[in-house]
Amino acid sequence: MVICLLNQHELNRTTINTIKNMSDKSKELFASIKLVNDRLNFHGIVEGCEPVSIDYTPPLGDNLGYTSLELLLLSLSSCLGTALLTFLRKMGKTITDFKIDSHGIRKEMHPTGFSKINLKIIILSPDVTDLDMKKIIQLSEETYCPVFAMVKGNVDIETTFEVRREA
Amino acid sequence: MVICLLNQHELNRTTINTIKNMSDKSKELFASIKLVNDRLNFHGIVEGCEPVSIDYTPPLGDNLGYTSLELLLLSLSSCLGTALLTFLRKMGKTITDFKIDSHGIRKEMHPTGFSKINLKIIILSPDVTDLDMKKIIQLSEETYCPVFAMVKGNVDIETTFEVRREA
Repeated sequence: MVICLLNQHELNRTTINTIKNMSDKSKELFASIKLVNDRLNFHGIVEGCEPVSIDYTPPLGDNLGYTSLELLLLSLSSCLGTALLTFLRKMGKTITDFKIDSHGIRKEMHPTGFSKINLKIIILSPDVTDLDMKKIIQLSEETYCPVFAMVKGNVDIETTFEVRREA
Repeated sequence: MVICLLNQHELNRTTINTIKNMSDKSKELFASIKLVNDRLNFHGIVEGCEPVSIDYTPPLGDNLGYTSLELLLLSLSSCLGTALLTFLRKMGKTITDFKIDSHGIRKEMHPTGFSKINLKIIILSPDVTDLDMKKIIQLSEETYCPVFAMVKGNVDIETTFEVRREA
């Protein structure tokens, strides 16, 4: 009975890790940040992923990683990308290349979050039409992109797209 | 005049890169995601940072990186951590260790974003008091944490803390 050899602290940690290992990501998610210098550099940690370096800009931080707001742009754009690609594949479309560029404009007064986010989707495909894109962007923004739903009403988001036939 | 040798496409790209290099992160931020396999694995890209792998869970994805919702937890917790540490240092406090564990519970129906996020701050310090923490958490959530402001009203966020005197 290995568990008997653990002290209370280790026991708590073991229990937490067991819960995390068993967790169903469709229901709940876990993440941690840990300060790694004497300024504002954190390591972001999720089980099974390489740690991601997070930092703030000078003079408070040292530009040693992503800012919190850049992570928000990646969260939002990857959420939209996941929904769009899932729809397109269900429709039997061929996707040769796919990217989303995001650009966030910050408010001047605190809290200095984004007043506006521009998302530009660039897709390379022989058969995706502009009408397909319009439909699935609307569906994603209204229902199938959870990160959109979490910032809805607080940030103005403009989504544009470009379907290319050739690289 | 190197610029004269560029075609229109290269010229546009050069102009965009020049703008990005010159961009002031206190005003605007840029990020991109690029699909890197034939499923849902993206690379998140921000100039000056190591690319971050982003993926979805099986069966649609392959667990090859952070999910969009895990990135949101890292964005929110690092934003809060940055605000709190900045306040504590202005107050002349000593911080020996600092971490935030986050746990998000998803909605069962689309959009399956978080209905609730629990943030647990664990700080090791000889002189930070519970009252200090209560004050600066309130200030951060109300005014100084932009990611909080962007999800406000859409997600229930519970913040707890533990000040430890010894590791």
